[in-house]
Amino acid sequence: MSEFDLIRKYFTAAPCAQRGEGITLGIGDDCALLALPAGEQLAISTETLVAGVHFADPCDSFLLGQRSLAVAVSDLAAMGAYPLAFTLALTIPTANIDWLQGYVHGLNVMAKSCNVGLVGGDTTRGSLSLTITVFGRVPTGQELTRSGARPGDLLCVGGTLGDASGALPLVLGQRTADIAIAQPLLAHYWSPQPQLALGLALRGKATSAIDISDGLLADCEHIAKASAVSLVVERQKLPLSYALIAFAGDDKAYMAALNGGDDYVLVFTVPPVELVALLASGWPVYVIGRVEVGHGGVTLLDAIGQDITPAVRGYQHFCETS
Amino acid sequence: MSEFDLIRKYFTAAPCAQRGEGITLGIGDDCALLALPAGEQLAISTETLVAGVHFADPCDSFLLGQRSLAVAVSDLAAMGAYPLAFTLALTIPTANIDWLQGYVHGLNVMAKSCNVGLVGGDTTRGSLSLTITVFGRVPTGQELTRSGARPGDLLCVGGTLGDASGALPLVLGQRTADIAIAQPLLAHYWSPQPQLALGLALRGKATSAIDISDGLLADCEHIAKASAVSLVVERQKLPLSYALIAFAGDDKAYMAALNGGDDYVLVFTVPPVELVALLASGWPVYVIGRVEVGHGGVTLLDAIGQDITPAVRGYQHFCETS
Repeated sequence: MSEFDLIRKYFTAAPCAQRGEGITLGIGDDCALLALPAGEQLAISTETLVAGVHFADPCDSFLLGQRSLAVAVSDLAAMGAYPLAFTLALTIPTANIDWLQGYVHGLNVMAKSCNVGLVGGDTTRGSLSLTITVFGRVPTGQELTRSGARPGDLLCVGGTLGDASGALPLVLGQRTADIAIAQPLLAHYWSPQPQLALGLALRGKATSAIDISDGLLADCEHIAKASAVSLVVERQKLPLSYALIAFAGDDKAYMAALNGGDDYVLVFTVPPVELVALLASGWPVYVIGRVEVGHGGVTLLDAIGQDITPAVRGYQHFCETS
Repeated sequence: MSEFDLIRKYFTAAPCAQRGEGITLGIGDDCALLALPAGEQLAISTETLVAGVHFADPCDSFLLGQRSLAVAVSDLAAMGAYPLAFTLALTIPTANIDWLQGYVHGLNVMAKSCNVGLVGGDTTRGSLSLTITVFGRVPTGQELTRSGARPGDLLCVGGTLGDASGALPLVLGQRTADIAIAQPLLAHYWSPQPQLALGLALRGKATSAIDISDGLLADCEHIAKASAVSLVVERQKLPLSYALIAFAGDDKAYMAALNGGDDYVLVFTVPPVELVALLASGWPVYVIGRVEVGHGGVTLLDAIGQDITPAVRGYQHFCETS
């Protein structure tokens, strides 16, 4: 048995390969099989992370295991899907068992937190990269797409913004900070928590949703274009964490909130009456703007209503050279 | 818009992203959505191909496009699943449009032939590799697993064996041959045809099935172990193509048929009465052995019934060093 066959056995025996709901047949045959309740559709999303592009190399493999799965599952949250399963295609230069144990441990922790089971994949030799495909289920017609925002809706987010990209100087070892400040920022970067419960709560209420991976303004533009509306973002309403402001200062904190990627917080549009119902149920969501008639644009306003929309938005991965 | 955003638009506009059946929402949102008829399950399989390990680099990107999809879809055939869709995670070192056009063209041709639509994926910068995840549907209880073979069943294959690995000296440019010999061998390597129709015909008849990717003996061992039986393969019954024998000679042709990978022909077990029904319907299947009581082993017999089982079986990718 080759060392790569051993690795496959190791994944097959992992706790995350032993659950769960909806999985009729897991790892070990030509295909995995998933069952869906009547009236539900399967939601699918794929994410690739490449060493040196999407994460520093070397890095802690436990943290990478957590983050790689969370990033993919976040797309299920953005669709209002209930999580079921995932596949992992892992390409690694050598069969380093210490590295793999850390990675699988991180994967197990996040899989348990997100209630997904590993149902298949492939392990190959090559430059370090990983592709995770996630599966969820959503009742037909209740999916949260990007294309349903309507003028009059409010624009909201599901948590504080900018923490993950604000943590980059810590991730890259360029700066240090007190543990009380560093810990929450690094946690946002390395173990983002997909907002699955919020996604389910938004079914039938939100008119559109997306998870913030490219940066707030860039992702708002995706909604604006898909819905053929204009989105107005009010900068002073952006929720910022104490840790981010203390670490980065006001100006850089706002920049991180507007253009930093990797937040994996939901941004969504919702009619005012539905927002009241969400707030009444205790959901900690923040109104950051509104939907207007328009043609796919995003406008940023300052505290006195002046247009301060930046010319360039969006997020380049920290090591990407183009 | 970055060059990688342009590539994503290019895939979104590809013909294979415009079909098909069962796809409720295709490329462009946080998730794709697939619908299943009542009583059917979703079948999922993932394959990664790495340049220099699973294919020569450089190679013809059109041929790679065909082959990469065929290899993945073949797992749906082996499960008796009806094909629906696929996702593509493509990692490339540079945004070479000529290369991409060839690749997408190959993908389009195979996607049309296999009746699958591209529903999502990811394009990233890095060493050339690609991960394709395929989706199909199969009525609950009619899936063809590896674990149902029973003593008394016959062992069969769905086509000639060894052609793809026999073609390797041609693929690698180490040998040449007359076009009448080279063409069918290279076609088996670069554009294997997933045996989807045969997989569907085997539903309710075959007791187990697998597609030959590791080599006949190695894949028979997968069935033998999963079913807890012994498989007996009779070497003189292996179907070999005229081209393979003419190119490689008898001995090497048998070696390719037994241990060569990449055939993507189905091997399956079937009770004699069901085999008669398959043959009566005109399916060109070949009996190559039988299932006996046992514990996961595979025995190879020569023409006079002597045990000639090799000690080592299975297939190492042609550039793999371990």
